[in-house]
Order: sequence, then structure tokens, then C-alpha cells
Amino acid sequence: MEESKTAGKPIRCRAAVARKAGEPLSMEEVIVAPPESGEVRLRIICTSLCYSDVTFWKMKDPPAYFPRILGHECFGVVESVGENVSEVTVGDTVIPVFMPDCGECGDCISSKSNLCSKFPFEFVPWLHRDQKSRFTDLNGETLHHFLYISSFSEYTVVDTVHIVKVDTRIPPNRGCLLSCGVSTGVGAALKTANVEAGSTVAIFGLGAIGLAVSEGSRLCGAKRIIGVDVNEDKYEIAKRFGVTDFVNSLTCGEKSVSQVILEMTDGGADYCFECVGIASLVHEAFACCRKGWGKTIVVGVDKPAAMLSFTSFGVLHNGKTLMGSLFGNLKPKSDIQMLLKRYMDKELELDKFVTHEVSLEDFNKAFELLTEGKSLRCVIWMDK
Amino acid sequence: MEESKTAGKPIRCRAAVARKAGEPLSMEEVIVAPPESGEVRLRIICTSLCYSDVTFWKMKDPPAYFPRILGHECFGVVESVGENVSEVTVGDTVIPVFMPDCGECGDCISSKSNLCSKFPFEFVPWLHRDQKSRFTDLNGETLHHFLYISSFSEYTVVDTVHIVKVDTRIPPNRGCLLSCGVSTGVGAALKTANVEAGSTVAIFGLGAIGLAVSEGSRLCGAKRIIGVDVNEDKYEIAKRFGVTDFVNSLTCGEKSVSQVILEMTDGGADYCFECVGIASLVHEAFACCRKGWGKTIVVGVDKPAAMLSFTSFGVLHNGKTLMGSLFGNLKPKSDIQMLLKRYMDKELELDKFVTHEVSLEDFNKAFELLTEGKSLRCVIWMDK
Repeated sequence: MEESKTAGKPIRCRAAVARKAGEPLSMEEVIVAPPESGEVRLRIICTSLCYSDVTFWKMKDPPAYFPRILGHECFGVVESVGENVSEVTVGDTVIPVFMPDCGECGDCISSKSNLCSKFPFEFVPWLHRDQKSRFTDLNGETLHHFLYISSFSEYTVVDTVHIVKVDTRIPPNRGCLLSCGVSTGVGAALKTANVEAGSTVAIFGLGAIGLAVSEGSRLCGAKRIIGVDVNEDKYEIAKRFGVTDFVNSLTCGEKSVSQVILEMTDGGADYCFECVGIASLVHEAFACCRKGWGKTIVVGVDKPAAMLSFTSFGVLHNGKTLMGSLFGNLKPKSDIQMLLKRYMDKELELDKFVTHEVSLEDFNKAFELLTEGKSLRCVIWMDK
Repeated sequence: MEESKTAGKPIRCRAAVARKAGEPLSMEEVIVAPPESGEVRLRIICTSLCYSDVTFWKMKDPPAYFPRILGHECFGVVESVGENVSEVTVGDTVIPVFMPDCGECGDCISSKSNLCSKFPFEFVPWLHRDQKSRFTDLNGETLHHFLYISSFSEYTVVDTVHIVKVDTRIPPNRGCLLSCGVSTGVGAALKTANVEAGSTVAIFGLGAIGLAVSEGSRLCGAKRIIGVDVNEDKYEIAKRFGVTDFVNSLTCGEKSVSQVILEMTDGGADYCFECVGIASLVHEAFACCRKGWGKTIVVGVDKPAAMLSFTSFGVLHNGKTLMGSLFGNLKPKSDIQMLLKRYMDKELELDKFVTHEVSLEDFNKAFELLTEGKSLRCVIWMDK
């Protein structure tokens, strides 16, 4: 085991700090404490921007906390390890994942669940096991973590239940995509829905997650993939991800989107994915999934209190299924390896998700590109 | 092909007619027209009383219609056939089923659906294809059909899409149970949920349907079956159907039923079946099915407008699935044969569902027994 020169000592490095809701991130020097038991300190090679970062950057009230270091989709190298860490060693390349995978609890042992019971994913401040942060600014003020990762920093401390050791041959600017968004969408098609070859899929929302659902459906051999979005320009991009038909939900006239899809498909899509996070779109998705066997998969994150309501008869009498898909039902430690293998085998196409690459100084540009709908994934290289 | 002496002529026979909502059935002589094209006229050997008969007997407004001949769970012999009928011939024994199975449409061809598209099941008056009834009373007044069957008559006319030809060795007072209730419950466990061996099941409502779910779960090898009911006496009966634990929902104190079940199971049941038809019980069922993989199956029929509401987060973040189960997802023509085989092989135990047997004169007694919760299934022999 190679010994890190900085092991056991605090590291001073650069980070993009969110000090106030919605205001530009501030490029600062921060102090990153050494990893505690069961933790590793990572040097972040690159991080990509996911819409959850934007959501929490804009959010004013808890679970938003400031000042905070956002970022959770990334690729890193182990700089040092805390006590009781045997899974990785200094120099290992890893993909951090916000979803825990302890490998020991009933859920992690089961092939059916990806919801670790030992470290349940909740909307808490996402602190470490000792309920403390590993970040301080130069004035000694605590900086909050985000989604157990906080990758908008050159170094960060992550619990081993949140890291997946990966082959050193994986390109960081591709591997990082599997940390959250692309895995979520591809997994929703592959694992949650288990899309059948030859079937018809409808995807509500053609952002990166929706396109990843399309990519996953394409891998499964879906025959027809209908993309729904308010932005007509998305169709051209979406075609590269397997989308075969487009419905502009703003120009359906007197018909609802579900009516249009029911007509296009002569009875409904076999699988409908809601990837926006709007309850009413879940209702539309449920309405136009095929009676008898259609599955509606909730992927988008609406507000915690938003309600999904269906008539009892609508559920009972139509043979449809409603499912949620958190992180695409993927078990981080095993399924990310599976996706990486499919990427290395040139089945899963990751390149097309990366539309922009910038350096650490251009963090705020990355935010602009995403919020303006100009980027799918903007990779931020930390050392450039 | 044996020729029936009554073929082509109207038949005058006895029937129990529901003339007014909730009032005792009236034993009358009625006229049964000959079968039209694609139809058969059946001599009903026996019929059993299902709670849907009671519901529609009590109901005052449409889809309730009076005067009507109720009954839909039964066993019969083909008396004569209309034109274009090749599936059965005079003397064949059949189980009529309210769910259509045309064998030709996309749904009937698919192994995944049991919701025939050619003759969609809807809450209509359930007339024949020519939108007419085959029953009149002795004054010439039209008597309405019920669920395409109307088995509370010595003879009835049924479309061939609603009949399943069965082995003549099947005892009528066992076979009739597969016409509706027992199939619905057993199918919900076997086909809709596909209960895994060794799993934990919770059943809300221990009427015949709930007990049939238990029987189905037992056949699947469920390890633990928790029955929920307001009637403590049901536990003793339920044990014979595989129920291992009982929760009296009236005596949970300050806890909700779902809390009690979550505690009993250390995290929830793998499968929760709502068999009462109360939306709030579906919510309870969903709340106590296991995060990560739990399935909630709606079997009970609530009012058409009753709403099932879940928080968007509750669906997205817990890996649970919500499904409806109409006729247990069974495809009548093939799956009833499968259930009959399991009955003949002494796996599926039908005997224990039949608690009472009466003659046609005692129709109203059968209603009393069921509404007072004294019977599971009361078989009414038409020729005694």
C-alpha cells in the first residue's frame, strides 16, 4: 500500500462553495479533514453537473443548508484512507455514489433492493457517521456536505459505503456519469422496468435522465421510443439516444398528451417513464401506459408533499403497474461494474452525454449551461 | 353432436329475480330465449353466491338495473348452441366467467394481459352483443342480465367468450368456485403478485377473496401470512387457508395497522393484498409493504370515484410497486384449466371454501348467510 504524503493531515485546496441560495458559487480555499474510520479522502479528478446540484443550489430552506459544497457526480482517486478500510487503498480509482451500499444489511444482500437499511438514504444534511462535516473554510466555519459526496472540491471525504472501486482504465469524464444521472435513467429502463425487446416506451422529459432512459431502452431492444418535451429542439438530440417519435406537450391542442400517445400507439405504451418530477405528468404517464400490462415508472423528483392520485377503479381494472425508481434500482457496488462493462464493450454509449467540458474556474459557466438547457452533461476537470 | 329437444325454442324455467334493491329475491317462472350466434344456452347445475351479487342486489342506481337475474359464479351444462359455435357442443360441462376471453385480440393473445380488447369489461348493463336480454318474465317484461352470466336461473344464455369448457369429472360444487371469487384471490397471489417461496404476505380482509389469496400464497410457499380483519373469529377459519398471524384492525390502539405490521415483520410484508375495497386500506397496505421490493396489490372493489393517493416521494423513494388485480390476472380459458388441474392434483384445496349448500328455494337464505358473515361460499343446487 502506497503511503500518501498528506495522509492523516488536513488538506488545503480549492472548492466551489455555495454560500447563498441561487448566487454564483464562490471559488475558495477550504480545509479538508483527514478521513475517519470507514472513510476515504478522495482527490476529485472530474465532476459533472447534475440537476440535483442546481435544485439544491436554488433551494432556500432545509434540506438546503449553506454554506455548502455541492456536487455528487464525479470520479476520484483515493488520496488516503481512514481506519478499518480494506475495500480500497491509496491510488485506487473510484466512482462515489450518493446511494449507500453497505453490503451487509438485508437490502444490500438481497438482489431485489437497492435501499440500504443500515445507512438509509434520507433528506438529512448528509453528514458523516459522527454527524460532523469534514470541511471548514479558512475562517474555521463549517461547510456542509451534499449527498454524502461534495465533489465541487479538489478533495473530499466520503464513506466507503458510498464508493465503488473501478478499473483504472475507465476514462474519468465517462465514469463520472455513472455516479448519478446516467445510471438513474439507464437503470430505470434496465432494472426497474426491465424493458422487453420490441416494446414501446414513452419518456416524459428529455433531459439527461430521460435520454438515459432512452439509452437504456435502446439497449433493451425497444422498438419505439416516444419522447415528450416542451422543447421541440430536444428531438434532434434525442434521436441519437434512440428516441423515434416526439410529442411536444405544448402543442397537443385540445388533446392531453396521454390521449395523443394512446392514439399513436393504438392503446398505450408498454412502459411510461416520468423524468421531470411533476405529479400531473405521472398521471398522464399512467393514463397512456398500456392496459393489461403497462408499467409507469416514477423517476423524476417532485416536491416531498406532491401527491400522486389515481381512482381505485383505474388501478384495479386496468392491469397497470406503478413503480418508483431511485437510482434506477441499481445496487451501486455491483451494478455500476455491470454498466462499465457494457460501456467498455461499446454497448452503453456514454460519450454522447458529455456536451461540454470546462475547468474548475468555469464552475458557474457549467451552471449556466445546464439551467439554460444548453448542456446535457458538462464535465468539470478539477486539475485544469 | 347430440341434439337438444328444446333447442331453438324458448325455455320456461324457474329463476330468482331481483325486482327491487335489497328486497328478497322473487322465485318466478321466466322465459329464456334460444341462443343467438356465438352464444350457448346453459342449464345451470349449481351457482354459488359471491359478494358482488349482494353489492348489486343492494345497489339502487346504475350500474344496478331492475328487474334483474343476478348470479355469476356457477357451473353449467350446454343445453343448446347458437350459430357459429364450435368451441362447445350440447352436453359439455362449462364454467362461465364474467371476464371475456375472445382468444383473438392483442390482449387475449398476449400472455401478459387478461383484459380482452374485443369485448372490454365495462360497467355497462352487460347485455348480449345485440344489446338485448335473453330473459323475459311471464308478463313479457325484460329481465336484465348480470355480469354476462345471470346464473340465478335454471337456464341462461351466455356468449362463448364467457365460457370455459371443463372436464366432466369436475364436481360442479367445486368447479363453480373458479368462476369468480376463488380464482380472483388465488390468481392475485399466483399471477399478479407471483408470491415468492419463503416470503411474508399481509392480507387485508378475510372474506372468501382474502382467504383465496391466502390459499394462493400457501400454494406459492409463503412462510408467513398475516390476516387483517375486524372480526376476531375469522382467525380460526383463516388458519385452514394458511394464515399464520392475525391482526384485529379495531384493536391496534394508537397504532395504525400498518405500524403494527411493520413492527411484526421488522420492516414490512413482501406482498400486501387489499381485499376489502376501501381506499384507506390500500394506503395502509402500501405503507406496510417492504421498502425495496414490496408489492401492494389492489383486489377489493371500492366505489368508482374513490381515490388512491400517495406522496410522490413515497412512490419514488421506496422501491414499492402498486398493482391492480382484476380476476387475479387470470386468462379464463387457459388459467382456469390450470387451477382445475391443481385442484385435481390435490394442491389447490377448494372443499374448504364451501361452508353451506342449499336448494333453489333457499336463495334468500344464502343471501342471509353471506351478508351476516356466516358463510364463505354457499352453493345453491338448481335442481334440488
